[in-house]
Amino acid sequence: MSVTAAKGFTAAGIAAGIKENGNPDLALVVNNGPRRAAAGVFTANRVKAAPVLWSEQVLKNGQVSAVVLNSGGANACTGPKGFQDTHATAEKAAEVLGVGAIEVAVCSTGLIGVLLPMDKLLPGVETAAAQLSEHGGEKAAIAIKTTDTVHKTSVVTKDGWTVGGMAKGAGMLAPGLATMLVVLTTDADLDSETLDKALRAATRVTFDRVDSDGCMSTNDTVLLLASGASGVTPGYEEFAEAVRTVCDDLGQQLIRDAEGASKDIKVEVVGAATEDDAVEVGRSIARNNLLKCAIHGEDPNWGRVLSAIGTTRAAFEPDRLNVAINGVWVCKNGGVGEDREKVDMRYREVHIVADLAAGDETATIWTNDLTADYVHENSAYSS
Amino acid sequence: MSVTAAKGFTAAGIAAGIKENGNPDLALVVNNGPRRAAAGVFTANRVKAAPVLWSEQVLKNGQVSAVVLNSGGANACTGPKGFQDTHATAEKAAEVLGVGAIEVAVCSTGLIGVLLPMDKLLPGVETAAAQLSEHGGEKAAIAIKTTDTVHKTSVVTKDGWTVGGMAKGAGMLAPGLATMLVVLTTDADLDSETLDKALRAATRVTFDRVDSDGCMSTNDTVLLLASGASGVTPGYEEFAEAVRTVCDDLGQQLIRDAEGASKDIKVEVVGAATEDDAVEVGRSIARNNLLKCAIHGEDPNWGRVLSAIGTTRAAFEPDRLNVAINGVWVCKNGGVGEDREKVDMRYREVHIVADLAAGDETATIWTNDLTADYVHENSAYSS
Repeated sequence: MSVTAAKGFTAAGIAAGIKENGNPDLALVVNNGPRRAAAGVFTANRVKAAPVLWSEQVLKNGQVSAVVLNSGGANACTGPKGFQDTHATAEKAAEVLGVGAIEVAVCSTGLIGVLLPMDKLLPGVETAAAQLSEHGGEKAAIAIKTTDTVHKTSVVTKDGWTVGGMAKGAGMLAPGLATMLVVLTTDADLDSETLDKALRAATRVTFDRVDSDGCMSTNDTVLLLASGASGVTPGYEEFAEAVRTVCDDLGQQLIRDAEGASKDIKVEVVGAATEDDAVEVGRSIARNNLLKCAIHGEDPNWGRVLSAIGTTRAAFEPDRLNVAINGVWVCKNGGVGEDREKVDMRYREVHIVADLAAGDETATIWTNDLTADYVHENSAYSS
Repeated sequence: MSVTAAKGFTAAGIAAGIKENGNPDLALVVNNGPRRAAAGVFTANRVKAAPVLWSEQVLKNGQVSAVVLNSGGANACTGPKGFQDTHATAEKAAEVLGVGAIEVAVCSTGLIGVLLPMDKLLPGVETAAAQLSEHGGEKAAIAIKTTDTVHKTSVVTKDGWTVGGMAKGAGMLAPGLATMLVVLTTDADLDSETLDKALRAATRVTFDRVDSDGCMSTNDTVLLLASGASGVTPGYEEFAEAVRTVCDDLGQQLIRDAEGASKDIKVEVVGAATEDDAVEVGRSIARNNLLKCAIHGEDPNWGRVLSAIGTTRAAFEPDRLNVAINGVWVCKNGGVGEDREKVDMRYREVHIVADLAAGDETATIWTNDLTADYVHENSAYSS
């Protein structure tokens, strides 16, 4: 059901011809109101794609009537022409939908440094608009796929209101955000400030803690649109939890579909002096290529976990560190713990617990193993 | 000639039985004076192996008579017993050489979290001592190999004095330092303060800028020993340059032998506002897995270079960035530059220039591509 699970939204997904293989590559999501409140979170990368620069401006008004998303080209590092193309895309959608261009967000994903084929994209916007439907969420989710093997959607339905969403992303997952385009919709009746607060709270502990390969995209965008069509105004906590649940679910789907991965690794840091320490240590472990290779080889190589912890500024004493892999405390007090032969690593999910023994704070970062398939996919992507 | 190229040094390399395959695994380097001045630089990892903790103490006195090095076990994360083993190793060498244990540095490399077989190591020290020779440098260099495919040595001979050295290291190369054990020797007549200054100046721009996979070892050690046997006291600048030359040569050998690598990548950052900015940007580029995969695939994917630059705090404007790959400016002013088809990437060395257009400072970081062989070697290492 995706972005059309909530009342007040229509969507479409079509093949505009941006992708040379003819696969769907253009999605349109429209908020039919009565409200058109919105919030957005964007990549922390300082090299931002044209659609990010544009959509950041759009979101400043807290009002979004439509989102145009394309796969098949990121429109990043494309200079003034790239920005003009994004602007023209918003203008075209505004024209056919009868709204203001400044209420149209644009998201792009694909190769960096290539201009979009506007002669295909602009007619595509018209075609998509003609196919808008309350059942179009699934097609929209399919149209934003790049190297994704599956499309990703999630829905939480509460008492009279709904939060739903779609996501794309398979590589370049990293904090601040993972590479992804995400559109969330809700028919709850809320203003943009409330949406913004709930969205930031959710992404901070979900997408921001999904770190497949440490690389940060130029195009990451997460949007939350509210139509108010349910007529229900839920309490903040209940709403925030629903948004977090959908974000968490989509984040998990991203990790499970990460390029070439054979293991999903949950890195849980406990006993940290501060949450920042826990996140820093979790990221350091999650980004350690040697450890990611070891996990791929089903090798519970806790020495590489300690080595990764040792590169951080977090509070800890080396001789108090403990590490469990899949429930076996293979490292105790900085040295050899239980027999590593006891660790069963046959399954896709691997759970690493790093205990800093320095406090009570925790954080969980999700990552993947490093595989020959990852190398293959990413060495062949553009050529 | 390695560590015995300079006068006043003897060395040996033997198979003590630490490695189960019977390969050489124990090296001994002895400074026969008349001076025994020394300096050392150690890993910045806060989880330090027992031999690092010991040798840091030894170096505080600026005096080293001998170095015992073993491959086949890192003696890291081995608790109090591991430290006792390092101490016992120094004591044994001191006993057979007739020197003080506090003048014996110890270096270990291999798997983390495994105690060394002291019943083989201690007799090995005796055997090595009996084989000490002015021609033993080569054998010592061979005995410290782990996954190295070749042993690494370098010598610079100046007017009456010499700096020589040996290195091991193939994976886990990273700043602060690369994983490596390096012993440099000189017969120049210099005190430990001068050695320390020259060594730190050299490692800062050589080993510290070799970053194969961003992982920092628990065991990195670089030692510089001076015998004074030449009777010559060179000027500081001349000496520092010789040390830097040997370090640079050994660092290049490490990169060329990095695990599973098929490309050596020189990341040259120019136009930076500060040297720190240049180093930060260089490291960010060098550690970008997606770029390293692209280079493996001979794909001049400059978008991934910009994406990596964008994650740093360095001073730059996105629309002023320029990137050259193997001499072709594929990115100009943050957008598409010369035709990427012109880039010839058939050769092992790849040269990336990132121009921040923000100043005059520069830095060069060396790294490798990311390959399926890297994944294979590092997923199978301990199991």
